[in-house]
Amino acid sequence: MFPFEFHNPTQVIFGRGTTPRIGKATAPFGRRVLLLSGQGSARRSGLLDKVTDSLKAAGVEWVDLGGVRPNPTLVFAREAIGRFRREGLDAVVAVGGGSVLDTAKAVAAGARYAGDVWDFFTGEAEVGDAAPVTTVLTLAATGSEMNSGGVLTNEATQEKLHLSGPALFPRVSILDPENTFTVPRDQTVFGVVDAVIHLLEGYFNGSDPDLPLQDRLVEGLVQTLLEAADAALRDPKHYAARARLMWGATLALNGLTQAGTGNTGFPMHMLEHPLSALYDLPHGAGLAIVGPAWMRHASRQAPEKYAQFAGRVFGLHSGSVSERAEAGIRAFETWCQERGAPTRLPAAGIAVEDIPRIVPHIRRVAEVWGMARYTAPVIADILKLAA
Amino acid sequence: MFPFEFHNPTQVIFGRGTTPRIGKATAPFGRRVLLLSGQGSARRSGLLDKVTDSLKAAGVEWVDLGGVRPNPTLVFAREAIGRFRREGLDAVVAVGGGSVLDTAKAVAAGARYAGDVWDFFTGEAEVGDAAPVTTVLTLAATGSEMNSGGVLTNEATQEKLHLSGPALFPRVSILDPENTFTVPRDQTVFGVVDAVIHLLEGYFNGSDPDLPLQDRLVEGLVQTLLEAADAALRDPKHYAARARLMWGATLALNGLTQAGTGNTGFPMHMLEHPLSALYDLPHGAGLAIVGPAWMRHASRQAPEKYAQFAGRVFGLHSGSVSERAEAGIRAFETWCQERGAPTRLPAAGIAVEDIPRIVPHIRRVAEVWGMARYTAPVIADILKLAA
Repeated sequence: MFPFEFHNPTQVIFGRGTTPRIGKATAPFGRRVLLLSGQGSARRSGLLDKVTDSLKAAGVEWVDLGGVRPNPTLVFAREAIGRFRREGLDAVVAVGGGSVLDTAKAVAAGARYAGDVWDFFTGEAEVGDAAPVTTVLTLAATGSEMNSGGVLTNEATQEKLHLSGPALFPRVSILDPENTFTVPRDQTVFGVVDAVIHLLEGYFNGSDPDLPLQDRLVEGLVQTLLEAADAALRDPKHYAARARLMWGATLALNGLTQAGTGNTGFPMHMLEHPLSALYDLPHGAGLAIVGPAWMRHASRQAPEKYAQFAGRVFGLHSGSVSERAEAGIRAFETWCQERGAPTRLPAAGIAVEDIPRIVPHIRRVAEVWGMARYTAPVIADILKLAA
Repeated sequence: MFPFEFHNPTQVIFGRGTTPRIGKATAPFGRRVLLLSGQGSARRSGLLDKVTDSLKAAGVEWVDLGGVRPNPTLVFAREAIGRFRREGLDAVVAVGGGSVLDTAKAVAAGARYAGDVWDFFTGEAEVGDAAPVTTVLTLAATGSEMNSGGVLTNEATQEKLHLSGPALFPRVSILDPENTFTVPRDQTVFGVVDAVIHLLEGYFNGSDPDLPLQDRLVEGLVQTLLEAADAALRDPKHYAARARLMWGATLALNGLTQAGTGNTGFPMHMLEHPLSALYDLPHGAGLAIVGPAWMRHASRQAPEKYAQFAGRVFGLHSGSVSERAEAGIRAFETWCQERGAPTRLPAAGIAVEDIPRIVPHIRRVAEVWGMARYTAPVIADILKLAA
């Protein structure tokens, strides 16, 4: 096991009917807040009204700012930071999925920084202070509700990068599975793929090959997520299934399963971010494409862990180590495919001929993330596995 | 899944060579601290010198107070509180296992309370404010390093009860597996039993029978702990094994696996505390006795989860549900027995004739903990299963 630090101060309030607690949970952090939301589903479903009722009851005033889109943009975040400053606000309340939460974190960091918020994404500045963020989550996927990171797309440069810092852990996150009952089928699938890949980034990318504790946590969570996804697809209002997806996705990227693995990179995310930046693809859809491709690439040199994955998660025990490794990757790929996620570039409308155009964008992420071994030829090889 | 709140603000610093970070980690919380330790092993091994060197380098002064014993006493805690107050100290640095850490928490709570610290244990008062605690852990067992609880024995009344409160989470805990290399064989076993029972309290005692996420986390951790224990018993300086025991025991009682189970009681701990209070037994030894007895009692009405445990943890798949349930309990009992833990009362020198004398003490804990269904006849029945 590798040395690690684990410090996750987010307070999670989980369960049916917990949404009305957002007001009291937010009040200690500010009397005037930016209320951030997405493309309107929270407004239409009545969730936003529940939130504002709760804020009102707790004596918290808000400035309503909807319109965060999937693959949220730097431009929107900059405008929101301007608004936050002009209005002299104290905190951000984010109501939505990862896009809204990540934007909230960028606003929180940018509002307390004299320079441009993009500096945090390119590594030119580190997040020091940040305004407090509280959240009401509406999508089981990114884990942003209980971690200190966030991702934005800079449309001008076509870069999709992330910021992080201890000050960005949400102070309180309300996780009410009923708020995900209306998540459409494809978004449910993409969310699960995102969470599963978060788990597998550390599982397949740890530097220590002998991590039984972390392995079993990951295998158990992946099994649970895949099973619960099918239950939620059959019945979108299946509370227990939605609850497992929500808590499972949170645990997938709150530091728990990564702790001790020595994992220093997120290669599948490195490959995916430029795809969704360039083609405005849902992040989970992009991961269903580059995930299996990267796994095939990585399993060539060290198939053992992949064979273990095949056996423990999918019950595939026959054949050589390499055969079992491939069977496990294929099982995950098939799982995605059968539930409507694209698993090859063309299925997402990306021409294989585009690969040379995509590669430099991935190189750029590799540089910013310090993953030097992903040279242009290596990246091209991996993308060809997704052709 | 049941509603829950999860909020664990302890910062864990894990890994070989992390002990010298205690000074800097403690400095933000106080310039003058009570340095609490146990029966001398930390002094003899040189660990305490490492800690004081680090405190000195960070400009932190300390008052050295050793002598906390296993099954730590209220009398000692009261004296330490007096010392803390007279010296006008700011914080407690605990160097040791669960006994030292639990005493530190009692001191931290008592130092900021006008009444008697025992009030927190009997439920007459709630822990509000508390002095900050930082820890250097030397035993993988109780999980006190990352939770908000602690247990003390009141020798005058022969009660062993616990206190808890959000203010009692250690601010920082240093978990260096090398600090457990010198833990004797029996203490290693008792520590593992304690951690496993922490996991099983929630697993077997949750009110929702359908908790695949939590089940798999528990099953994976139990398997890992049992395997790692054997590796550490064969080679006490096996770093990876000691690391798994240390982090596994921490995760066993930091709220993670309990979250969502609706678990409202710790019946095996309720049964055990009076045993170790009356007979000064190591807590883990007492749990090896009452654990299997309680499981047999509880499995009679609902054997399914026990059968699942038998299959997933011990690979026992044959026979009826009841037979498999019993086989799983027996496998755990045998595991304990073969590694030197007592699993029946007489093996710990407790006469079966003592049962009527023990029962009222357990009833008292059941009352304080609000576990009314454990009447005197029920408790006697369970203890007879340990005869």
